[in-house]
Amino acid sequence: MSEVLEKIWQHQQISRVELVEHTGLTSGTITNLTHELIERNVIREFEAISGNVGRRRVMLGFDPGQYRIIGLDIGRATVEIVVVDLHGNVLRTIERDMSDKAGPDDYFAVIDPLLSELKNDIEKAGYTILGLGAGVPGPMDYGAGKLLDPPNFPGWQGYPLRSVLEEKFSLVTMIEDDARTSAMAERWYGLGRTIQDLVFITMGIGIGGGVVSGGKIVRGTNGLCGQVGHMTIVIDGNMCDCGNRGCWETVGSIPGILSRWPGGGSMDRFAEAVRAGDPDAVRCMEDTLGYLETALINVFNLYDPELVVLGGRLYPYLADYMAPVQRHLRSRLYAFAKDRLRIEPSTFGTSQSAVGAAALVFGFLLSEPVRLLSLAEA
Amino acid sequence: MSEVLEKIWQHQQISRVELVEHTGLTSGTITNLTHELIERNVIREFEAISGNVGRRRVMLGFDPGQYRIIGLDIGRATVEIVVVDLHGNVLRTIERDMSDKAGPDDYFAVIDPLLSELKNDIEKAGYTILGLGAGVPGPMDYGAGKLLDPPNFPGWQGYPLRSVLEEKFSLVTMIEDDARTSAMAERWYGLGRTIQDLVFITMGIGIGGGVVSGGKIVRGTNGLCGQVGHMTIVIDGNMCDCGNRGCWETVGSIPGILSRWPGGGSMDRFAEAVRAGDPDAVRCMEDTLGYLETALINVFNLYDPELVVLGGRLYPYLADYMAPVQRHLRSRLYAFAKDRLRIEPSTFGTSQSAVGAAALVFGFLLSEPVRLLSLAEA
Repeated sequence: MSEVLEKIWQHQQISRVELVEHTGLTSGTITNLTHELIERNVIREFEAISGNVGRRRVMLGFDPGQYRIIGLDIGRATVEIVVVDLHGNVLRTIERDMSDKAGPDDYFAVIDPLLSELKNDIEKAGYTILGLGAGVPGPMDYGAGKLLDPPNFPGWQGYPLRSVLEEKFSLVTMIEDDARTSAMAERWYGLGRTIQDLVFITMGIGIGGGVVSGGKIVRGTNGLCGQVGHMTIVIDGNMCDCGNRGCWETVGSIPGILSRWPGGGSMDRFAEAVRAGDPDAVRCMEDTLGYLETALINVFNLYDPELVVLGGRLYPYLADYMAPVQRHLRSRLYAFAKDRLRIEPSTFGTSQSAVGAAALVFGFLLSEPVRLLSLAEA
Repeated sequence: MSEVLEKIWQHQQISRVELVEHTGLTSGTITNLTHELIERNVIREFEAISGNVGRRRVMLGFDPGQYRIIGLDIGRATVEIVVVDLHGNVLRTIERDMSDKAGPDDYFAVIDPLLSELKNDIEKAGYTILGLGAGVPGPMDYGAGKLLDPPNFPGWQGYPLRSVLEEKFSLVTMIEDDARTSAMAERWYGLGRTIQDLVFITMGIGIGGGVVSGGKIVRGTNGLCGQVGHMTIVIDGNMCDCGNRGCWETVGSIPGILSRWPGGGSMDRFAEAVRAGDPDAVRCMEDTLGYLETALINVFNLYDPELVVLGGRLYPYLADYMAPVQRHLRSRLYAFAKDRLRIEPSTFGTSQSAVGAAALVFGFLLSEPVRLLSLAEA
């Protein structure tokens, strides 16, 4: 059933005959499986007119009529909540500034009323909520559903987020590192829809990475796979919170950039100084792009992904300067691979992690539809 | 059937009852599947005495009696051929020095008679050869079964190795980058038997890497996943063949080390000078270990494997100095992950890639036994 749902998602609309061709299943099996999925309102039939003679064909696609997914991002500076339907449309976005708040009590004082009301609204309108996905700063203890010791995020050490969310809202709940939710937003709803191997790099206060390989999130042994911010860029450089020296994050994140700019102040002031041609600012920007370039070379040479997606609060400040970075990369990568180099900005901007948190639940629907539906309806 | 074979391999000996427990299959299914595998001489029954009361139990394990696998490594300085049985025992090893040879004609003048005679011997003794695996310097065109443009390996550009081997020896043939075959040797026959995520790093004339994730080789989009030798270690360092600057390979490989040592000469002379306390040599060794340390930190932070295995011709020269490297790594990795840090030397020394080439075919047997057996017997 999972295979059938993935094919329908990839094609957006597909006939039963094409499903037989693409899956290798018998037409009897396809008839039975699609019948069950239609009964359960996961997919629906519709007529499409195809070809020159305008023949009408019955196509299958996802049904946006019954189910909703809620995505929540608990970030260092914001809380964001989105509602997504089974077409992947983001129907609602709620954002709250949290830059003067700290710790679970402060956060849940904001989240509790928002989510309760949202849940109530969705259910009163007759929809079924499939689940709640949540993105949080990593690293995490996946087995226990707890945060471990996220840097720059006081009060959350060891917090049992999954069970707290489950108890508060009685929804199927999945939690994940926010770089990985961001990667999943691209994988299911963004540029990665037909791509199996991508790396999402989020650049802001820190630098994180989410690796998708063969269509699936790769977490690694300790949940640390994709810690691209902690690759060494400056040998014997400054000490990093992680214990290493000269990590990309120490020079390439927002604090890393501002610490290297003698002008001081905010990213907006820095960006203005670069545009005005201030030599210190220009040199600092050039170094920043050089570090990014080196980091991207390492990402390509180590993961060899089909696509690298760049996001986070820092990215908009770098976007205008990406053309020369891409040019340099082409000259510094293996000859036969460089023409396939693909780097794109993230699809959902500041909502990336919240949309990706919803995508976690959508991925669960695709892989185990029967199980998720029975959990969601319980 | 694949799941059953993997469980038998993991446990080496296992009862049908335990197979039912571990796979979740019914005892009827286990009886049928194991019956078929015994009939085909892939596994066999034997009696084991277990427990304090000395109860006899019928156990299942792989049958080394009928099948053989041939592994071939075509290297820059040697050709190596091994014969492996279904217990993973290396029954024969043949090595030839090729340091004064170049190109396919020279190599096949050596390989042809060796492999033909070996094949003849094995078949005359009544064994069935399941297949021939071959490791070669990457990168490769996997679809076409060709080498691409391996550095320092003149004459092999675009060489259609897979079809040439198939035609010459009429065996099921699989070819793979030699860093990946080396990783597979650990995964199936070495330390990785029960490990799903490992990185093999081979250090010699070049530095390569083979990544195994979820038990499977990860090749990446262009076959370049795991190019650890081409991560940037010295920003703005020396030009590398790959197009990048300051790659680990430019400073950390055998030529990289010798180019940094003013003493000149061979690795043996360098090692002697280090032991004798020659200050230039000692400093060069310390720098080498520092680069290795940084590279390993990046490998852990990017892949987060359960195990890193170090091999290649350079490794024996570094082995005595690994204790301080491991100590430094512990202080430079994430606190909660560092106790799980595991770095080991390769199991098969100079035969690593040839043994791994055989492991490719063994992996094929585990994943598609019926298909491989019918191909091998055709």
